[in-house]
Amino acid sequence: MPLDATQLTHPAMPAGARDVAAGIPVARPRLPGAAAILPYLEELDANGWYANHGPLLHRLRARLAAHWGLDPGAVALTANATLAIALVLRALGAAPGSRCLMPAWTFAATAGAARAAGLVPHFADVDPASWALDPEAVEARGDLDGIGAILAVAPFGRPLDAARWDAVSARTGIPVVIDAAAAFDATRAGGPMAAGAAPVVVSLHATKAFGIGEGGAVLSRDAALLERVRRLSNFGFLGAREAALPGINAKMSEYAAAVGLAALDAWPETRATWLAVTRRYAEALADHPSIAPSPGFGGDWVSATLTVLWPGDREAGAAALEREGIGTLRWWGEGCHRHPAYAALPRDPLPVTEFLAARAVGLPFWRDMTPAQIALVCGVAGRAARLPPARTRRGG
Amino acid sequence: MPLDATQLTHPAMPAGARDVAAGIPVARPRLPGAAAILPYLEELDANGWYANHGPLLHRLRARLAAHWGLDPGAVALTANATLAIALVLRALGAAPGSRCLMPAWTFAATAGAARAAGLVPHFADVDPASWALDPEAVEARGDLDGIGAILAVAPFGRPLDAARWDAVSARTGIPVVIDAAAAFDATRAGGPMAAGAAPVVVSLHATKAFGIGEGGAVLSRDAALLERVRRLSNFGFLGAREAALPGINAKMSEYAAAVGLAALDAWPETRATWLAVTRRYAEALADHPSIAPSPGFGGDWVSATLTVLWPGDREAGAAALEREGIGTLRWWGEGCHRHPAYAALPRDPLPVTEFLAARAVGLPFWRDMTPAQIALVCGVAGRAARLPPARTRRGG
Repeated sequence: MPLDATQLTHPAMPAGARDVAAGIPVARPRLPGAAAILPYLEELDANGWYANHGPLLHRLRARLAAHWGLDPGAVALTANATLAIALVLRALGAAPGSRCLMPAWTFAATAGAARAAGLVPHFADVDPASWALDPEAVEARGDLDGIGAILAVAPFGRPLDAARWDAVSARTGIPVVIDAAAAFDATRAGGPMAAGAAPVVVSLHATKAFGIGEGGAVLSRDAALLERVRRLSNFGFLGAREAALPGINAKMSEYAAAVGLAALDAWPETRATWLAVTRRYAEALADHPSIAPSPGFGGDWVSATLTVLWPGDREAGAAALEREGIGTLRWWGEGCHRHPAYAALPRDPLPVTEFLAARAVGLPFWRDMTPAQIALVCGVAGRAARLPPARTRRGG
Repeated sequence: MPLDATQLTHPAMPAGARDVAAGIPVARPRLPGAAAILPYLEELDANGWYANHGPLLHRLRARLAAHWGLDPGAVALTANATLAIALVLRALGAAPGSRCLMPAWTFAATAGAARAAGLVPHFADVDPASWALDPEAVEARGDLDGIGAILAVAPFGRPLDAARWDAVSARTGIPVVIDAAAAFDATRAGGPMAAGAAPVVVSLHATKAFGIGEGGAVLSRDAALLERVRRLSNFGFLGAREAALPGINAKMSEYAAAVGLAALDAWPETRATWLAVTRRYAEALADHPSIAPSPGFGGDWVSATLTVLWPGDREAGAAALEREGIGTLRWWGEGCHRHPAYAALPRDPLPVTEFLAARAVGLPFWRDMTPAQIALVCGVAGRAARLPPARTRRGG
């Protein structure tokens, strides 16, 4: 079979990952095995129901809702999280053509979702301590009149203080959506981020801590909002075949729900393995204080990536790791505002985002990493971080 | 587990289907069984690649391309067909805000996709012989200046003459997209509709003749166009993590591709069963000439629905069928222009669409139907079609 450019990506996954064929890749997802999914597929066969909000989707929804400490009605499942954000923005009534305030320090999907909802992304800078938008700074802006919605991003799975965002939304009247794509775990019942008034969107993509291939979830205590999201994701239909709203198709199939149910069965063990890798990394990185992991890393939540700030020349560091067969990835590249597609959009001065983007590098992070692999990565990284800066290397 | 309104749909699937719990439902999809999917899931496990244009997707793409008589590069796979239409319209550069000419006699997704691409649907009437837009009538319009794209719909899987549309597009300079959602079979290599210059979008939804749950495919001989579609479906990325275009996520997961590969293994047998049911119906309906199936039904292609024009009071007919436990469904309702979401959009006079919408009714049609079931449906339908008109019934 002929190959094409899309096939050049590292098989273990994300586009742009530096290839380290014989070494330690930056990511190596492991989702439920075929044997774990099989019973759900057999149920699917028996149901003869393959899409369109079937029984497996309803069961997954109810179980995820319980996991998140919510009623089943407080969760909507979608084909992926990007479409979920776009539909939530539309369901909230954010006026097409208005600005959607979002951090520049985020993944390209955040801006793409706002664009798909007909909004104009406006990039604001993040707080250096949290790597996220600061609610009070947003509230103090002088230009809130033209802002139709705020997209607060939970960076790399770190929880946000949803209550502070709800207060901002209540006082300004501007709807807030929390892009919690990587924060599946932080939103768990009793976890550090309880869903408040602002809808929370979680990704169930293969690269996330809880992955099902492609999938998304919306958490909200506003049942009417979620009903609109479900309609918008199903051609505008709900029950009857009448399009009350101009919808698209953003439905999760029963096959995806089957993978989700198997993944949820395995979640306690999956989370334990993420937590073990997280703790080993946190310990090992403590020996290299110049390499700072993203805020909150090692806290009371897990995610599926490890992004650190590099103390010196980041490109030289990545090259040094690569020479040892260790993959790296700049998960958010140069920042969302630097993508050619979004470079002309309105934005604030972005010194913090620029600072972070110039230094952030993703290290290998996957749940089957051995202690020896983690020690190797941290050892090589620690030595590389102490290398003289690039001018010496280039000069020498 | 609490139920909600979305769960009231008949388990055998489409929203709005009249429930006939103990009888013959209007649709009963059967997709590949768990045992047929299992080997592909095991391969997926071994690959450790779950999304993002993985090896199974590439294999499915190559096999589908061969099925369609195309190079692998001439096919793009997406999360579903609605998103595929929206992305193709964007990839073609149809100017946001311009009108998208489409038939009123179509499913709601056609308009939803155009809206999602930022276009304004403009509903035109269909030809009574084909139930589709007439290329020459479109070309003769006096208002082509404001039309940014034409969406030609292959009604209920009936092939269009793609070459005629290519000629219209070449002469007018307006891009044409063929919404061939139900026309998986008509597009096969050597089949009645070869893909020409206009991109063709096929649905792989569970309700279609070739179903994988949720999925879509774009067929096009324009490799650059398909590259843009793939980018737009992957955050604007291709290979590198740089968003050159403002994309969303419309990717097909490896799980969906696994179902697709199993479905393709079974396709010869699947098609044979569709063909057998089609032929039996065509024969049985020949005894009831007042009940006219949709144009081309029984020809050199199969689809997964049977819509007929009812000679008398359609509601009375449907009620009579229901009393015998036979389900019906108005697949396209009152026409796309009658959905509340689209009722205010620009449109031509639509006498043919109104005529069809007032008479069309979907009869039970699924590949496991027995000859006895088909005979029963046609017998009951034939008697019901000869019933006196509604006023008598209501009066009596």
